[in-house]
Amino acid sequence: MSDIHELTRQLQKSGTSKIVMLVADGLGGLPLEPGGKTELETAKTPNLDKLAARSSLGLSTPVLPGITPGSGPGHLGLFGYDPLKYQIGRGVLEALGIDFDLGPNDVAIRGNFCTLDAAGNISDRRAGRIDSDRAAPLCEKLNAIKIPGVEVFVRHVKEYRLVIVLRGAGLGGDVEDTDPQKTGVAPLEPVAKNDASKRTAEVAAAFLKQAREILKNDSPANFLTLRGIDKKPSIPTFQEVYGTRAGAIAVYPMYRGLARLVAMDILDAGQTLSDQCTRLEAAWNDYDFFFMHFKYTDKCGEDGDFGKKVKMIEDLDAVIPRITALKPDVLIVTGDHSTPAKMQSHSWHPVPTLLAADLARFESQPGDPKKGPISTLLNADLLGSDGAIKFGESACRFGTLGSIKAKYLMLLALAHANRLEKFGA
Amino acid sequence: MSDIHELTRQLQKSGTSKIVMLVADGLGGLPLEPGGKTELETAKTPNLDKLAARSSLGLSTPVLPGITPGSGPGHLGLFGYDPLKYQIGRGVLEALGIDFDLGPNDVAIRGNFCTLDAAGNISDRRAGRIDSDRAAPLCEKLNAIKIPGVEVFVRHVKEYRLVIVLRGAGLGGDVEDTDPQKTGVAPLEPVAKNDASKRTAEVAAAFLKQAREILKNDSPANFLTLRGIDKKPSIPTFQEVYGTRAGAIAVYPMYRGLARLVAMDILDAGQTLSDQCTRLEAAWNDYDFFFMHFKYTDKCGEDGDFGKKVKMIEDLDAVIPRITALKPDVLIVTGDHSTPAKMQSHSWHPVPTLLAADLARFESQPGDPKKGPISTLLNADLLGSDGAIKFGESACRFGTLGSIKAKYLMLLALAHANRLEKFGA
Repeated sequence: MSDIHELTRQLQKSGTSKIVMLVADGLGGLPLEPGGKTELETAKTPNLDKLAARSSLGLSTPVLPGITPGSGPGHLGLFGYDPLKYQIGRGVLEALGIDFDLGPNDVAIRGNFCTLDAAGNISDRRAGRIDSDRAAPLCEKLNAIKIPGVEVFVRHVKEYRLVIVLRGAGLGGDVEDTDPQKTGVAPLEPVAKNDASKRTAEVAAAFLKQAREILKNDSPANFLTLRGIDKKPSIPTFQEVYGTRAGAIAVYPMYRGLARLVAMDILDAGQTLSDQCTRLEAAWNDYDFFFMHFKYTDKCGEDGDFGKKVKMIEDLDAVIPRITALKPDVLIVTGDHSTPAKMQSHSWHPVPTLLAADLARFESQPGDPKKGPISTLLNADLLGSDGAIKFGESACRFGTLGSIKAKYLMLLALAHANRLEKFGA
Repeated sequence: MSDIHELTRQLQKSGTSKIVMLVADGLGGLPLEPGGKTELETAKTPNLDKLAARSSLGLSTPVLPGITPGSGPGHLGLFGYDPLKYQIGRGVLEALGIDFDLGPNDVAIRGNFCTLDAAGNISDRRAGRIDSDRAAPLCEKLNAIKIPGVEVFVRHVKEYRLVIVLRGAGLGGDVEDTDPQKTGVAPLEPVAKNDASKRTAEVAAAFLKQAREILKNDSPANFLTLRGIDKKPSIPTFQEVYGTRAGAIAVYPMYRGLARLVAMDILDAGQTLSDQCTRLEAAWNDYDFFFMHFKYTDKCGEDGDFGKKVKMIEDLDAVIPRITALKPDVLIVTGDHSTPAKMQSHSWHPVPTLLAADLARFESQPGDPKKGPISTLLNADLLGSDGAIKFGESACRFGTLGSIKAKYLMLLALAHANRLEKFGA
């Protein structure tokens, strides 16, 4: 049995317990200077620290050591799906990112507006990065394209970026990009990588022919290239593999899209952490599992803004009491990957993770730090000035979860929620 | 995608960064007495300790917990090749060990001289362990054997051991040993395990027939048995899977052979660590990745000489400044397995490992141990009497690399050298 889900299908057990997985995107970080503290270690997080003191801590590896994941593999791992087994094309991710509800046979394509010169060669691969106000009406025009036997959807994303979805029978998902990745040459024709995708290549070519006509008088966006052509992967649903009803509370469309990939219910998340908590409270009785996503830790990391990432972590910390007040049987706080402000990008570094549950082995005793196992081993500094443990990379390194692959966190969540039977007699 | 290399092929990224993997063979050890220190912990290693203080530390498992690897699987793991997937036959290893450049279709065989009695039964399976001076001329005689359509190479290894290589079309690698593993019985005939190897069995039988004639008047080595008949495994090249030019600097032929298996360039290593460093310096601009191998830690472990292994580790420590002076972007110091002097053999114990790189999360500060996370966390005992971190099994247990499979170290090396793209969007 090589698939985790063969196991969970066999062992799943119903119950009334509640699991909350709180994902702070790009949570893990690095110190700016050697020997310094990471963003999480710098942040004042009294609520997470208190939680950590009664949690199992560990460092989660999203995919494999050294592999830096995008948001797709990062989240699939957290949902317990092997990110190396289920891969998500760029077109699909782009469609998920605008809340487009992809069907199982839809082919999703990322489009980039570009500029062609008089000879038909690309002079600018991003059409001068035209702004959204210019690009959105062009997408509406393209959305009028008709191709016999196929439904065509064209949706604007941002600036020069758009999504095209082809819906119809017999459309494979394996077609080469038409973006030649350089200027001074003509865009490529869509080429099928296999027989099952020949029809898709033909449809894409027909689409481009009409698009060329529609856009020809525009400047600078007088054409477009197609990239990341793909169908969404065939993924078993969260409910089917775990036997739990799952609700996703995410402000950003991309993360709603990723939750939709595994058929979680998408709940109205509002705009703020407070809105998200309100939704969590309102939906508490309707689901067994909640995925709650917080974007801004990643965003500030990508911007290289260490201080703002610290502040975002503190904002997150402030809502923890609203979550714990609901008394979830299991609360996991983790990230889908690290985004050290120092690197201004996603990274491969393992992600600080806590699992709070009644049966969690923990490192310290709330209010009585001298009793826990770590605290007898380690100096008081680790535990913070108030004697409580500090949630952060260093403390997680010593936790009972150890170094753990992200895809196993769901198993731990289910176990602690008493939702898995014994394996074997 | 179950293969690491499918991933690295997809994600490889070119660059100018340099990676050095320094392998101290059999580095890991055990204390002689419970509660004592290992060889590495006993050795005075100021340079490794300084390096450790700015490194990620961990314990590397060569194959699986509890599995004691030979040199072949130990090194394949370090090179990032799953040692359970790529297995190396004993004949192949023996050929690599004498620097024989095996072709992809060569069949390598380990031969043992033996003694037959008058009835043709084996009376001594090792021909009285005849010395090399006696055995080498016999190998030269056997090297004259001609078989139509096949090239035959016979090379002496040591004492009663030799290597036979069969080169020709249509030779499979699956033939049973002819050594019956006991005396008082006749040697076995070569038997093919599959149709593809029938021709090999016939050729081997023809070889043995001629060998019997050539050796019949010799005493005690009047015949030989064949073992470990195999072809070299089909392994993708290091350059192809990682996109890096790799140079191997190894004094012992076996390790050059293992590097040659993955098509590293074999550089002249001279005879000493100092020679090896000189070669590293001279070749610095020609490669992206250097594999540098130090044999004597293993050798002294196998000899059960704890003190000498300590001394060898100190010798290795002394050349570290020559390596760090080159400012490699990533320096990994590890072993291919443990060889505790106490056991006088390879063992399964995980191997102390350090990875020094700019973006490594690290444990302590060179010269300022109070600043780093480990040193504030742990009791001074672990850190050594001078308050600085000590590179060794105990410190590695607390490192951010955690318990890591050896085959993933290459991924980390590439990540820290900025030679891997993000996985997924």
